[in-house]
Amino acid sequence: MAAYFDHAATTPLDPAVLEAMRPYLAGEYGNPASLYELANRAERAVERARAQVAALLGAEPREIVFTSGGTEGDNWALKALALREGRAPGRVVTSTVEHHAVIESAEYLEKLGGEVTHVAVDGHGRVDPAAVAEALDVGEKPAVASIMAANNEVGTIEPVGQIAALCRERGVPFHTDAVQAVGKVPFDAHALGVDLASISSHKIYGPKGVGAMYVRRGFRLAGFMHGGAQERGRRAGTVNVAGVVGLGKAAELAREGLEAERARLAALGERLAEGLLGRVPKIAITGHPTERLPGFVSFTAQGVEGEAMLLGLDAEGFAVSSGSACTTGSLEPSHVLLAMGIPPEVAHGSVRISLGRENTGEEVGRFLEVFGRVVERLRAMSPTWKG
Amino acid sequence: MAAYFDHAATTPLDPAVLEAMRPYLAGEYGNPASLYELANRAERAVERARAQVAALLGAEPREIVFTSGGTEGDNWALKALALREGRAPGRVVTSTVEHHAVIESAEYLEKLGGEVTHVAVDGHGRVDPAAVAEALDVGEKPAVASIMAANNEVGTIEPVGQIAALCRERGVPFHTDAVQAVGKVPFDAHALGVDLASISSHKIYGPKGVGAMYVRRGFRLAGFMHGGAQERGRRAGTVNVAGVVGLGKAAELAREGLEAERARLAALGERLAEGLLGRVPKIAITGHPTERLPGFVSFTAQGVEGEAMLLGLDAEGFAVSSGSACTTGSLEPSHVLLAMGIPPEVAHGSVRISLGRENTGEEVGRFLEVFGRVVERLRAMSPTWKG
Repeated sequence: MAAYFDHAATTPLDPAVLEAMRPYLAGEYGNPASLYELANRAERAVERARAQVAALLGAEPREIVFTSGGTEGDNWALKALALREGRAPGRVVTSTVEHHAVIESAEYLEKLGGEVTHVAVDGHGRVDPAAVAEALDVGEKPAVASIMAANNEVGTIEPVGQIAALCRERGVPFHTDAVQAVGKVPFDAHALGVDLASISSHKIYGPKGVGAMYVRRGFRLAGFMHGGAQERGRRAGTVNVAGVVGLGKAAELAREGLEAERARLAALGERLAEGLLGRVPKIAITGHPTERLPGFVSFTAQGVEGEAMLLGLDAEGFAVSSGSACTTGSLEPSHVLLAMGIPPEVAHGSVRISLGRENTGEEVGRFLEVFGRVVERLRAMSPTWKG
Repeated sequence: MAAYFDHAATTPLDPAVLEAMRPYLAGEYGNPASLYELANRAERAVERARAQVAALLGAEPREIVFTSGGTEGDNWALKALALREGRAPGRVVTSTVEHHAVIESAEYLEKLGGEVTHVAVDGHGRVDPAAVAEALDVGEKPAVASIMAANNEVGTIEPVGQIAALCRERGVPFHTDAVQAVGKVPFDAHALGVDLASISSHKIYGPKGVGAMYVRRGFRLAGFMHGGAQERGRRAGTVNVAGVVGLGKAAELAREGLEAERARLAALGERLAEGLLGRVPKIAITGHPTERLPGFVSFTAQGVEGEAMLLGLDAEGFAVSSGSACTTGSLEPSHVLLAMGIPPEVAHGSVRISLGRENTGEEVGRFLEVFGRVVERLRAMSPTWKG
């Protein structure tokens, strides 16, 4: 039996989510922007989903704007805030461990003449709020600061509440890529005090191709996707009704199950991490020891390539990742691990396991049995293994 | 029995499309950017869809990039080509009857200091290639010209092949919003000679929230959605596998059925238009008499508000539009009708009917019976009707 251990890359659609979407993939196909009853029903479904997403984020429905996913949210936040008339883009403050959607958006703004200040992280991948304060104050007042809520490669949870407060004191708009955090740990947008937060549906057992942006009430955000007047003029493009309904249902399920699932996954993750350390020599867990997403176990194994482990495990029926799925195909070691001070040759031997809703203790037990064999075989062939 | 006559707003999902999507909404949930077999199967499904879309557009698979829809394609083309380092955005040449996604993207670039040249249309909503040539030559060499392939409010087909040739002669990148044309009339990207074309899935019986951009082989287009290396680095964000598979299947069905459906819808549309003109006084068909999308009947009725007709028809079971669905809720008369020289008070009385795959002659007959009654009732109450 195969086991899927890569929930940070994507998640299976929850059957209840598909069930909720089904009418909107069939007879309920109206465009919510139209005016007849078929369209009105689609519009009401979208508004129900908006309330569901708002509830998960501790927000008001009017603070939720639907997008095509987390990448769009990250692009939107950075570009809409930094691009401006007749001048080079405004300064961006961000960290060295952000998702590529933030990093590359910042690089794009840099190419257009903007300035980007990167805040370093510690060995656990954690951003120090004091370092953010320093970055905020070091030059031109930033147009936007963007620090993720939880890291997608090592699972480290960032102190976004403290960072949001520092930004607020200085009148700097603060965005957080909350794609990995939301649905796994409590994320209350109002309590955290963030201005903007991007989330993705397919990371929380919803469909791919849809996401949402939390936009704090009263916060002025220019558009990124220009065109029609959908989403009260904030995001153009025909609303992906079935996708949005799926995201809404996924948000509802995530909220209802959050505490129980968080405890269950944390316990499974701990068992997995301890099992790895106990059975296989020269393994190091990466990321923060306690401030980490539940069920998130990333590690490096000396003398073995991450991709080789991934493929060896795939042959045994386990789907894991060797870093961010967004950069596969690349031979560059993970920018996150490098930013944490892990040497490139060690970073090459990284694996990310992210457990999820359908995983069981039996699967974790089986994985531990298999993994030792896979690593032993690879190390036996490795020119760099000095076991 | 209700009849849906608003296929230019959105279309029902073809049951065969949903069938093709189904595995990717269930067990085949892999992220195509990952490396294990589950992910590889998703990747192969995406590549099959790419070939299907390419076949519909007369393109090579490598020329197709998946997006979140037509609006994203329009935003991408204009912004990626016009935004540039250290200077105001480059000049945009476009028409007065474009979709809002093009118009508002151009306005955004204008706000950032760019220049936009609008080419006027004739009374049928058709752009004159000579006027485009003049606009191309009138000032700074344009960064991009964007003229739609067919209009979404009146169905007029634009001479994009001729316009593309004029742009090519001058080395000006040419984009066309092909959302309404593709799948209804032949659209061969290579024969037309366009550089970029945006299409949308939900206008051709595919799912909402997905689309594609044709990017001519060798054409250099900067990114719009920055982040991961998906789509060979051209469009970041986890690929919406189920959506893309749906678009692929929809493209295949559109290609196979195009000629027969085109003739069928054209005949139905003619019958509808003639019936309207014969039965109801003071009706004027808008748009081009022959160069129009099949099954597309837009018209104005004197002394009646478009929205009142829409709601009256909805009560009788017919879903039609009173202009672009993207601008509903707005009391502004359609910018397309105004650009065609139709006075505002007449433009207010506009209705758009766009027939599609599931419509029948029986429905058209029933509509003609109902419509006369609806208009008569409204005119009886109208302060502006002088019948």
